[in-house]
Amino acid sequence: MFSLFSSGQFSTGEIVALWTVLGTAIAGLIYAIFLMMQVTREDAGTPEMQKISNSIRVGANAYLFRQFKTILFLILLLTAALYFTAGEKNVAIGRACAFLMGSIFSASVGFIGMNLAVRGNVRVAAAANRKSFSDALKIAYRTGTITGMLTDGLGLLGGTIIFMIYGTRAYEVLLGFGFGGTLLALFMRVGGGIFTKAADVGADLVGKIEKNIPEDDPRNAATIADNVGDNVGDCAGMAADIFESYEVTIVSAMILGWASFGHKGVIFPLLVRAIGVLSSIIGTYAVRTKEDVRDAMKAINVGFILSAIISIIGFSLVGFFYFRLPSETVHSFWINLGVQGLDMRPVWTTMVGILLAITLNRVTEHFTDTKNEPVRSVAESCQTGHATNIITGFAVGLESTVWAIVVISISILISAFIYQGTNPTFVAYGVAMCGIGMLTLTGNNISMDVFGPVADNANGIGEMAHLNKDARQILADLDAVGNTTKAITKGIAIGSAVVAAISLFNAFVTDISVLTKQTYDFVAASLSVSLPNVFVGFLLGGAIPFLFSSLTIRAVGRAAFLIVKEVREQLKDKDVWAGTKLPDYARVVAICTAAAQKELIRPGVLAIAAPILVGFILKKEALGGFLAGMILSGQLLAVFMANAGGAWDNAKKLIEDGAYGGKGSETHKASVTGDTVGDPLKDTAGPALNPLIKVMNMVALLAIPIVIRFENSPIVFWSSIVLTVLLVMFVIHQPKSEHEAQAYSKCQ
Amino acid sequence: MFSLFSSGQFSTGEIVALWTVLGTAIAGLIYAIFLMMQVTREDAGTPEMQKISNSIRVGANAYLFRQFKTILFLILLLTAALYFTAGEKNVAIGRACAFLMGSIFSASVGFIGMNLAVRGNVRVAAAANRKSFSDALKIAYRTGTITGMLTDGLGLLGGTIIFMIYGTRAYEVLLGFGFGGTLLALFMRVGGGIFTKAADVGADLVGKIEKNIPEDDPRNAATIADNVGDNVGDCAGMAADIFESYEVTIVSAMILGWASFGHKGVIFPLLVRAIGVLSSIIGTYAVRTKEDVRDAMKAINVGFILSAIISIIGFSLVGFFYFRLPSETVHSFWINLGVQGLDMRPVWTTMVGILLAITLNRVTEHFTDTKNEPVRSVAESCQTGHATNIITGFAVGLESTVWAIVVISISILISAFIYQGTNPTFVAYGVAMCGIGMLTLTGNNISMDVFGPVADNANGIGEMAHLNKDARQILADLDAVGNTTKAITKGIAIGSAVVAAISLFNAFVTDISVLTKQTYDFVAASLSVSLPNVFVGFLLGGAIPFLFSSLTIRAVGRAAFLIVKEVREQLKDKDVWAGTKLPDYARVVAICTAAAQKELIRPGVLAIAAPILVGFILKKEALGGFLAGMILSGQLLAVFMANAGGAWDNAKKLIEDGAYGGKGSETHKASVTGDTVGDPLKDTAGPALNPLIKVMNMVALLAIPIVIRFENSPIVFWSSIVLTVLLVMFVIHQPKSEHEAQAYSKCQ
Repeated sequence: MFSLFSSGQFSTGEIVALWTVLGTAIAGLIYAIFLMMQVTREDAGTPEMQKISNSIRVGANAYLFRQFKTILFLILLLTAALYFTAGEKNVAIGRACAFLMGSIFSASVGFIGMNLAVRGNVRVAAAANRKSFSDALKIAYRTGTITGMLTDGLGLLGGTIIFMIYGTRAYEVLLGFGFGGTLLALFMRVGGGIFTKAADVGADLVGKIEKNIPEDDPRNAATIADNVGDNVGDCAGMAADIFESYEVTIVSAMILGWASFGHKGVIFPLLVRAIGVLSSIIGTYAVRTKEDVRDAMKAINVGFILSAIISIIGFSLVGFFYFRLPSETVHSFWINLGVQGLDMRPVWTTMVGILLAITLNRVTEHFTDTKNEPVRSVAESCQTGHATNIITGFAVGLESTVWAIVVISISILISAFIYQGTNPTFVAYGVAMCGIGMLTLTGNNISMDVFGPVADNANGIGEMAHLNKDARQILADLDAVGNTTKAITKGIAIGSAVVAAISLFNAFVTDISVLTKQTYDFVAASLSVSLPNVFVGFLLGGAIPFLFSSLTIRAVGRAAFLIVKEVREQLKDKDVWAGTKLPDYARVVAICTAAAQKELIRPGVLAIAAPILVGFILKKEALGGFLAGMILSGQLLAVFMANAGGAWDNAKKLIEDGAYGGKGSETHKASVTGDTVGDPLKDTAGPALNPLIKVMNMVALLAIPIVIRFENSPIVFWSSIVLTVLLVMFVIHQPKSEHEAQAYSKCQ
Repeated sequence: MFSLFSSGQFSTGEIVALWTVLGTAIAGLIYAIFLMMQVTREDAGTPEMQKISNSIRVGANAYLFRQFKTILFLILLLTAALYFTAGEKNVAIGRACAFLMGSIFSASVGFIGMNLAVRGNVRVAAAANRKSFSDALKIAYRTGTITGMLTDGLGLLGGTIIFMIYGTRAYEVLLGFGFGGTLLALFMRVGGGIFTKAADVGADLVGKIEKNIPEDDPRNAATIADNVGDNVGDCAGMAADIFESYEVTIVSAMILGWASFGHKGVIFPLLVRAIGVLSSIIGTYAVRTKEDVRDAMKAINVGFILSAIISIIGFSLVGFFYFRLPSETVHSFWINLGVQGLDMRPVWTTMVGILLAITLNRVTEHFTDTKNEPVRSVAESCQTGHATNIITGFAVGLESTVWAIVVISISILISAFIYQGTNPTFVAYGVAMCGIGMLTLTGNNISMDVFGPVADNANGIGEMAHLNKDARQILADLDAVGNTTKAITKGIAIGSAVVAAISLFNAFVTDISVLTKQTYDFVAASLSVSLPNVFVGFLLGGAIPFLFSSLTIRAVGRAAFLIVKEVREQLKDKDVWAGTKLPDYARVVAICTAAAQKELIRPGVLAIAAPILVGFILKKEALGGFLAGMILSGQLLAVFMANAGGAWDNAKKLIEDGAYGGKGSETHKASVTGDTVGDPLKDTAGPALNPLIKVMNMVALLAIPIVIRFENSPIVFWSSIVLTVLLVMFVIHQPKSEHEAQAYSKCQ
């Protein structure tokens, strides 16, 4: 590391900047450790509560260990494969190590974050039990912040270290780092998503609908699995997902920054991120409420806005005083603010990113919050039955995805406009910086997100441990806020995936132009949608998210079917039904775990193999079209599923709060159907599309040199055709009918 | 017309060919008239049956007249507007007239076809009443063939006449013809789609679910409206839709044929179409079954295969003997079959098109037929309730759209591969010829499609007129076959829309290159998805089908809400409930009609305005991206909705036939929910996307000269921004809540 510094590749100012960034990353991690100690020091509640919490923790850990074991082999295999994708030995070792580091970091964020969440939940319940709303909020939110700061810290640390070691070659190594994080996130998202919804749907179908017992009723054998699911899905999965968006945006900004402005173009986004870490520390620590106010949402929002303001001031100052990017002579006042040589454009694009994050939050909130018309119309439509509820929610989801696209489109246009009249890589850098800006407040976003499952679990523990009414009310209130914050951060996660994917796509074009020794414009021209192979690539790319979603949704269905059968079986035991004997929670967790691991394989193979095969069969231009089509339909589908699901969920909540007949009415039953339909969409299929989009872009970036090398090889072409046929047969051969599901259940 | 012929623009051979085509078109129309006489001559059943049939006919006509009145003003306005889009006076008059002709033809196909359908239905019921399965099948199918031959005849007639009159300038006039047909189809599809599903959902929600009375029970005030809806939606709407696909593919093939091969490139597709007309006449007339066999599906399939074989032989002969396309010297045996100067490539691409049609039929059948695994899995999932049914159908729909895309992609690749190594317009011509081939058997396809609502209506009349059990069984069997054929042709309609849209897209690129006096390659290069404005256009284009679907689905919801209220109100009358007094059917028809007209406006304005505004604000390149994104997401969404809907529909049928508990069970109730959810998707939103895709492409083609002319005008730019804001406000301001729906119901 130091050898490069002394080689004079970096100026003194740059060295100071890099060490500052590194220091900030470490400060973020130290803050996370500080919060860990703070949270674990809190009162852990009554023995009964602890027992329940322990069951959840043991289940969650069992799941994650199994998950890591399943993918360990693949990770090692890919580490070796990545070694061979790079030409030079130095870079090859770096890329393989970076890949390993990326996956370990991503896994750690998920693993540690989840472990703290399952410790935090019982402490939140305990705080509620001693009737302190403010303590309960603080513990729940800070538990989330731990994961948030881990994401910030590790993401920044990895990128900075690689850049410090590899300097000019960092780009090739960073790819490995990004891919590691992304791939792990894909598996955590898909596996976690299948687990959580299989448990949830299974628990609800038997409990709420068949037997008319409340959610989290201790007699329901799937309750613990359901709570475990919240942690492995919403907590570990989401954290790994945002971690990799965080990572991928920095990787693409560094790649494009390097191509546009050299060192300074790389260091600026790192500094922006460092400011983000500091502002998140301050903003998240400020989240608190008074006992007589009890407004959790407001407290969280205040923290968010505080962080946003600090960030904007921070990187304006960095842009203005420290970081004068060299560029062509610039005369416009809005670019140099009248100061010779100053270039504020990176600052403006970063601000566009922050505004994009805030606006996307608002869009998601509009479509999924109980206060607004969309959710109200969904709730209202429950009056005419199950079907009209589904139709209305479907329409709400379709509409919401349009507005998300519009907001993202406008941000991209403004970012590109800021760099108008410059060359295409500058424009691409502008879009990448928009992505950097968007994820500046990752610390806050993850805090808000993880707050969701922690509050949800605390509420579950409260129900199972029969806490008093006051405590239950506190927990129910926090749970409701958690649902909203969880839904809001989904919008950011998906939006950032698209912006990151667009940056990766630009990196892909840059890459082809370097590899084929042709100009960027020439390569860009070959990606015209008016060419049949590009158009076909584009059609096929667009179809992938649909196929992927079909696979994950069906996987949830199959797994849930096993849970339903198991819970029904256990409820037949009269002692369990009477509540005198606890059901076998662990068995349900084990079934879920096994099912999720099995169901992971098809989507996983599809995600890695599809772009490579498209490249080999239809050539690099079609691969470009493939990526574009996939980003488009992935974004549309992901937001549609997330928001339709969110709207159904909250429509049910609205009715449970007494609207249109309230709990137990026919209207309520219709709303439960909507919620159940929405669950796999919003918590499995939709969120799994974020890492999918990025994994495929990453695979394409890594595979493109090989694709170009074997462009004219008939052997590669024909063997790819054969592999495609095999892949298709493998993917479509799903165990579908009851018989197969039974057979499948036996082999666990 | 004759002046051009004598001017020597055409050779004698060409003149003969053109008159032959014209003669065939007229022969098709004469055959349609012959069938009309044949059908109307049949026994029209008992007075009771006739009374019911008359109610349906009166309702359907009232609807169509109102519809035509609503859009008459718009059509006249656009006729005038189109006059000003063309530069030269001669062309301007031609384009305006062609637009009018296109709309009138499209309207006529819908209007006459529907009128015959509502006459055919009672005759089918009468035939069943005298226990003749073969007569019932023949009448139902031939009623459909009337519409089929009208489509074939008028589509071919219009294109040929325009080409004969305008010769080298035909391209600019044909645009008007295509746009007229397309626009009318959009309105018929959307308006008819809203009408039919509002009536259907409304009837089912009150009848089947609330009151537990069977479908088509005469006490349900919405039954007549439901039957009217089948005609205005599935019959008039679908016929207009396929008519315009037929028209648009011929227009784009003629445009691209002209650019590639001059006259011969234009006349070849016309001849292929003429062969299609002849083979459809023979194939459709051959559809019949024996009284002891009673296999309607087999009879229809035999006719289809017969037509396919005749077509393939026919155009192989034309390609081989008569039509030697001049091209570069060709040496490959597969191109010239060893004959000097022969070019079989147009023949091969046309065959690819026929194969595509057949394969798409199979894909649709796989996912929507009761015999296959997907529908069985949906039916099975009804056992665990409403929600699992929806989830499974959702996943089936998602998967099906992938396979449709794969099939279309492979066809495009093969068509492009056939022209490999030539210039891009040749390749585009190949893809266009694939579209021509795909719609060769339009006569058969429409017969199959219209057969659906005719059989459905006949079954309804049978139920309402209390026919005997044997007759009812015949009608039920035909109805079931009709459901399958209807679903199958939907696949063709959507697939052809995409292939046509891709051809239009290529015509769009050709057009820009002519207008900007730049090479095709240069223009193609400017449409690279790696450019931010193209990518943004592409994102926005992708969002349009989602917005459009949301609008149409919500429109159905609002209209259905009015019907539910009306039917409930009428059922409160004790005499109606006892069956001693007929409900006021006409009132429900009137409500549906008024609602459909109102709900038409938003989607209609969106479809016409969006591409123009995108062109003005984001420039021509972004408009290219916009079209590409729209084609992709439109295709994905349309097939998804059509097949998910089809699967839910047939899953219900499967259960009604006794599977998993049969009629009346909880499983059955869950399956009804799926069917009701699927209805607006498969019969309103999904099918409306076909004309939408083509209308937007057409608008873009017509608007592109103006977009280029005002490219640098700030006034146009800013006024477009203002108009966009107004459009957005108009589109999002939908009457949503119950209060608004009530207010809205009063103003009818």
